Amino acid sequence: MKIVVLKFGGTSVGNIKRIKNVAEIISSYSKKNYKVIVVTSAMAGVTNDLVKKSKEISDNFSHAEYDVLVSSGEQVACSLIAARLIHKGLKSRSWLSWQIPIITLGSYKNSRINKINKDNILKYLKSGGIPIITGFQGINFEGRITTIGRGGSDASAIMLAKFFKAEKCVIYTDVDGVYTTDPNKLKKAKKIRIISYEEMLEMASLGAKVMQPVSIQDARLNRINIEVKSSFKKNPGTLITKKKNIINSKIITGISFTQNDAKVTLVGVKDKPGVAAMIFKPLSKNSINVDMVVQNISANGKETDLTFTIKSEDLKKTKKIISENKKINFRKLIFDGNVSKISIIGVGMVTTPGVTFRMFQALANKKINIQVISTSEIKISVLINKKNTSKAITALHNEFKLDH
Amino acid sequence: MKIVVLKFGGTSVGNIKRIKNVAEIISSYSKKNYKVIVVTSAMAGVTNDLVKKSKEISDNFSHAEYDVLVSSGEQVACSLIAARLIHKGLKSRSWLSWQIPIITLGSYKNSRINKINKDNILKYLKSGGIPIITGFQGINFEGRITTIGRGGSDASAIMLAKFFKAEKCVIYTDVDGVYTTDPNKLKKAKKIRIISYEEMLEMASLGAKVMQPVSIQDARLNRINIEVKSSFKKNPGTLITKKKNIINSKIITGISFTQNDAKVTLVGVKDKPGVAAMIFKPLSKNSINVDMVVQNISANGKETDLTFTIKSEDLKKTKKIISENKKINFRKLIFDGNVSKISIIGVGMVTTPGVTFRMFQALANKKINIQVISTSEIKISVLINKKNTSKAITALHNEFKLDH
Repeated sequence: MKIVVLKFGGTSVGNIKRIKNVAEIISSYSKKNYKVIVVTSAMAGVTNDLVKKSKEISDNFSHAEYDVLVSSGEQVACSLIAARLIHKGLKSRSWLSWQIPIITLGSYKNSRINKINKDNILKYLKSGGIPIITGFQGINFEGRITTIGRGGSDASAIMLAKFFKAEKCVIYTDVDGVYTTDPNKLKKAKKIRIISYEEMLEMASLGAKVMQPVSIQDARLNRINIEVKSSFKKNPGTLITKKKNIINSKIITGISFTQNDAKVTLVGVKDKPGVAAMIFKPLSKNSINVDMVVQNISANGKETDLTFTIKSEDLKKTKKIISENKKINFRKLIFDGNVSKISIIGVGMVTTPGVTFRMFQALANKKINIQVISTSEIKISVLINKKNTSKAITALHNEFKLDH
Repeated sequence: MKIVVLKFGGTSVGNIKRIKNVAEIISSYSKKNYKVIVVTSAMAGVTNDLVKKSKEISDNFSHAEYDVLVSSGEQVACSLIAARLIHKGLKSRSWLSWQIPIITLGSYKNSRINKINKDNILKYLKSGGIPIITGFQGINFEGRITTIGRGGSDASAIMLAKFFKAEKCVIYTDVDGVYTTDPNKLKKAKKIRIISYEEMLEMASLGAKVMQPVSIQDARLNRINIEVKSSFKKNPGTLITKKKNIINSKIITGISFTQNDAKVTLVGVKDKPGVAAMIFKPLSKNSINVDMVVQNISANGKETDLTFTIKSEDLKKTKKIISENKKINFRKLIFDGNVSKISIIGVGMVTTPGVTFRMFQALANKKINIQVISTSEIKISVLINKKNTSKAITALHNEFKLDH
């Protein structure tokens, strides 16, 4: 059986007209002799409305009941899609997660799919039916509804693709693929036709909002080809696949940026062993993730400056923790939320010398000062002043010829 | 265990404020040492919105998917009520029909509850929990969601009361009980404190919209005491119970009326055996329910006039069937939609002579002409001109002293 998993996001099923369009898309795969498994999110806005209700009921709404509440949205979307396919003369039905069942582990609001019983769906596929499955949810060992914390319906789609050994998993969303950089920031950003899991992971972690990193990671681990495309346009999307499948890889595949980082500098820290640990341990304990770190060379062998970045939302907490930490001595504490992290990403980087230099040079040419640097095998990130974001992206996009 | 089943209708859970109020009501029963089982409808308006969506998807929406679609409304209401009780420090959770399960028979959109597995709920009640159960639905032998055709959530509540041997079943709705007649029609209508199943059945069948006849019939068969009351007011409602429990029964308990009947008269029908059957058989075949029938005495032994009533909505179909029926000869066909059926109802009627006379006299005094009559052991119905509806109700309400 040639199986394809199609996942439709909230905007793709956002109103009746769009649901009818989704039925056309499903039908086109069916005509191509695919056995189609459909996973859907709730209609856009529905989940938000339910969440709003929950907040009005209680500021401490039961997590178990929250999952019962919000999971109803996917149930509605499933029935509407299935009914539309039936209307078109196809064999289809909704499959709610408890009817399959999809078994999850973990706590309410934050479960993950552990097992999918294949029997019912396989039988149904073989009978020529198109199952429409509720995304974002499952049931736990007590038979209660749970929702998937991270990745939501994308995670459902990828796990279904894994369990049913699907040829590919198509993620229909409101953007038509992954771009070399945010097209809202740079008009000449180009759609990436093919990208490796690793690059996509960096792109996603560093700001491209097409898919959540956890879902890409799941796809990578299970070697599932993902196609990201728009349900509103017919043109091809972006294929996320393993490196081997990518023949003509560029040095740099894309540029991403985030603007929700904040820079913290401790001026005049005593330069002795263990001081960094003393600073970072209490942050880690409080679930504050430290991203980039740079420590200046000590000029006098006694004192140094330590700079690191955190998420802006953790700024207040970080301030409190460091200020109240009696174990560390420093002269001054500086916070800077006015920063932007720009990253260039590409699997070709590791085999191409001089990429770092080209990046720094391109930024220097535009008189953009680099505040902090961090690198991995396939990405280089720099922290710059927020006001230079667009200028930096344009410079790097040109430097690495991403519009070609 | 002293069990009470509380059922909340759509308006009772119509918004967040009302759901909070419902939680207060549930909590008050819990404090009185009742083991409380709650059944809820969907929030008012939600089901209508889903039905609207279904119509936009298809004019022939799959019945199975329809049930998946509309049943989501009760799921939402359940989780909100349960979460509110948890917020108040009580032990509660939603129980979806498939989690219990509640097993139904019959077709989609029109199932009936066949069996309720008591184990899960009993265990939960014994642990001190308050189960909040989705009304209006169950699952069939295939494990698919079904909705209850007639009676909806009321039927769910009564079946739960039956299976759990509840002391009573309280139906919370937007009216505070059953009245001697429609208070919108007659201001001095009085709330009936206690009424027999049989009377309530007639009241409901004949126009009182508090509960559906099928649910009252279920309650009667299973001897379940029903209390109908408002979730918005604290005052007592109406108790529907067996005749034995009613000590001071009046001759007449209430007056109901319907205005959706139509009168059909066949003038000059050949007066021979079997003619009525020839007329009514094709109507019955087409699911047209004939209610009242009167045949005039034949003046010449050859011809007679036959009058009967049907629901107004069947008028067009009836016209077609009779006109196209070559087997019956008549001179003229008269339709009259301008009629109103007024009924007086009371279990005391059967042991009290002269009730019919008093009814006719009271109407005659107001110069109201009676067109057709039909009677049962506990009710007398008359068909009159629609314009006289209010006048007739007032006259009968006075005649039988229903405001005392």
